[in-house]
Amino acid sequence: MVPPSVSPVVDALPSTEAETEPDRRRFLRRGGALVGAVAAGTAGSALAQQQPAPSALPPDVPPWMKVPGAPTGGQLYGKPSEFEKNVVRHLRSTDKQYFSSSTRSPLQELDGIITPNGLFYERHHGGVPDIDPAQHRLMLHGLVERPLVFTVDDLRRFPSESHIYFLECSGNPSFTAYGKTAAEANGLVSCAEWTGVPLKTVLREAGLKPEAKWVVAEGADAAAMTRSVPIEKCLDDALLVYSQNGERLRPEQGYPLRLLLPGYEGNMSIKWLRRLHVVDAPVYSREETSKYTDPLPDGKARKFTYYMEAKSIITAPSGGQKLAAKGFCEIRGIAWSGHGKITKVDVSVDGGRNWQEAELQQPVLTRAITRFRFPWEWNGEPAVILSRATDETGYVQPTLEELVKARGTGSFYHNNAMTPWRIAATGEVTNARA
Amino acid sequence: MVPPSVSPVVDALPSTEAETEPDRRRFLRRGGALVGAVAAGTAGSALAQQQPAPSALPPDVPPWMKVPGAPTGGQLYGKPSEFEKNVVRHLRSTDKQYFSSSTRSPLQELDGIITPNGLFYERHHGGVPDIDPAQHRLMLHGLVERPLVFTVDDLRRFPSESHIYFLECSGNPSFTAYGKTAAEANGLVSCAEWTGVPLKTVLREAGLKPEAKWVVAEGADAAAMTRSVPIEKCLDDALLVYSQNGERLRPEQGYPLRLLLPGYEGNMSIKWLRRLHVVDAPVYSREETSKYTDPLPDGKARKFTYYMEAKSIITAPSGGQKLAAKGFCEIRGIAWSGHGKITKVDVSVDGGRNWQEAELQQPVLTRAITRFRFPWEWNGEPAVILSRATDETGYVQPTLEELVKARGTGSFYHNNAMTPWRIAATGEVTNARA
Repeated sequence: MVPPSVSPVVDALPSTEAETEPDRRRFLRRGGALVGAVAAGTAGSALAQQQPAPSALPPDVPPWMKVPGAPTGGQLYGKPSEFEKNVVRHLRSTDKQYFSSSTRSPLQELDGIITPNGLFYERHHGGVPDIDPAQHRLMLHGLVERPLVFTVDDLRRFPSESHIYFLECSGNPSFTAYGKTAAEANGLVSCAEWTGVPLKTVLREAGLKPEAKWVVAEGADAAAMTRSVPIEKCLDDALLVYSQNGERLRPEQGYPLRLLLPGYEGNMSIKWLRRLHVVDAPVYSREETSKYTDPLPDGKARKFTYYMEAKSIITAPSGGQKLAAKGFCEIRGIAWSGHGKITKVDVSVDGGRNWQEAELQQPVLTRAITRFRFPWEWNGEPAVILSRATDETGYVQPTLEELVKARGTGSFYHNNAMTPWRIAATGEVTNARA
Repeated sequence: MVPPSVSPVVDALPSTEAETEPDRRRFLRRGGALVGAVAAGTAGSALAQQQPAPSALPPDVPPWMKVPGAPTGGQLYGKPSEFEKNVVRHLRSTDKQYFSSSTRSPLQELDGIITPNGLFYERHHGGVPDIDPAQHRLMLHGLVERPLVFTVDDLRRFPSESHIYFLECSGNPSFTAYGKTAAEANGLVSCAEWTGVPLKTVLREAGLKPEAKWVVAEGADAAAMTRSVPIEKCLDDALLVYSQNGERLRPEQGYPLRLLLPGYEGNMSIKWLRRLHVVDAPVYSREETSKYTDPLPDGKARKFTYYMEAKSIITAPSGGQKLAAKGFCEIRGIAWSGHGKITKVDVSVDGGRNWQEAELQQPVLTRAITRFRFPWEWNGEPAVILSRATDETGYVQPTLEELVKARGTGSFYHNNAMTPWRIAATGEVTNARA
């Protein structure tokens, strides 16, 4: 079982191979040659690319092949490699307390569109309750024909649906906090496959009275987190969710039951859901008046700002990373819109003067994160890169300057501005706003 | 913040509500009434349904609302609730050793199509190596113009792709092992979003010689797991994968690098990939001769049985579960095919005599798990339920009898037969084959 020794391998590629091979699709070429991006579906496009760093020869037989590995089932519930122990949610060390606080997904470390449950962002208002699902109840009452109480098992018996949706905190980020990394700048967004029962199914079970216009959702956390939801959303795509990425909700995501309002600001998707009170008007709870509203320069405030607008961010290369060498660099990022599907993401590598369209990972799903990729030849000179999302309504993600012009400087929430990253000649990447 | 006390809730639904409400879409009806399955998109269909078990009143304020919960960021890498501690991979306690063994995904506990990384099935041939990604190398040599050695970081610089694909062990299950639960019967299948670089991109980098027809892939585990892969597959959708469900591969899934051959039997998607040897003929390694082949009654064996055929299994209700009451029961399951998309899943509730079409969760993805759902009214009498998948080639999943008729009784691998579950009058579910 010992592999043959390795010998015919070229270990000094840069000096031997660049000039002899006519294949225009190669990536290991010494800087300057024009090749197409095979996987990006843009074969034939003229993008200068360069080879990755040359590699040393592998050892004939690495030490981990000489002894049996860990036994199968050593972790009946698996966990990441110890070599990935620093890939965790980002917790600000400067918060005054951690009962009403947040952690951010390490976007710069993630690929694809699914956020693994262990790295899904958190935002809690009274800490994470430890709920026994057998004791948990959901009460549905108010302007209904038949008030009802459900156990989690009751709800699991209803017809179910699964959808991949993003969730984003409306303070992602605030207008004044920019952050060094993609996580710090925009890590209050994540995406998962959610399974549950459509809220409309359960509302029909109870029978809505004609004057039912809003549903007040309340969580079973110490903050009794409470928000008013328009009945139109409740009868559209709202879900009562019990599973996330296949398994039961994690405690920090509302175990054993949460509301999920696709495209709405995250705090309205009430976690640890215990009560749905059907009413005729919003209750103007603390978290929809003193918080999660946007004061405007004229002294008024924006009202009912539920849907998260189209947004995108480049996650690689991004703040805190470093380009290994000039040449080919795939720019990768994520885009999303509360209003539906992302239709286009443009990338600029000159600070926003010129734009080129990125490729979108298929299938593009409504109200889900969409991964975009753009093949770039970095010439080794300082650059500012940024992305701009467009959604199916035609809405285009703004710059921060455009957003401030519209809303003034008093806003804290709903900042969906572009995030520009500055690349130094050394390859180091920093937040161009910081 | 304390919610008002609960009072107007009906806690004895069965006796009060069934006869007064004309809405045909309700689910809480006492047995026998005809209602449609709202969420299944079959409103108006005639399916008798019954209410879930009646529920007790909720406590006014549960204990977990009276104290702050665990602080935000208490788990910077999260984990499931302690109440879910029994939802783990299934490890047979009767195996003689665990270096070449397997664990099974708890299919009966899972929803949707994504398998969380912690519950993805395992199959190892020499245990799980603990590989330092900085030391790991992939060598590409043989019938190529330029032999190459890559670090993991080198490969991450290439254009990337992400796809949701299933993986299934070819011994899922063997022809003689049926199992009590869905995990035991068919838990050697899982599904994830994989990110990596197309193998064809890397092969083109090295430059294939005209006589290159096969690629021998070798793992860096103690078994040096080795399989020959046809060049056609390598130039099609084969991926060199470094991420799974957004984060880096788990150790048991090949960290830091694995081959992924969509639709092929799982053991060919070599984990801990260290070598790709381009050759002109298969090497007939141990794991493609003494193992993973199917002897036939005439003394010959099936050759090159790579693609996993269309298959499905009902995951709820399934073995080990118990129906709470007669009435409405959503039958849920998963289907997949190595040959592409699932086009249809039929469900029988009378042991295979009559069939009805289930609803498929959208979007249906090629070579991914597809969730199906079927609304059923259980009349409380003994029943045998099973599912039957059809894929885009027109292939229909066989019964075990049909499979044995074609292949005899000497086969161990590639059993894609239907799994029938028997429901007793008590509601208890068992494997109808056991």
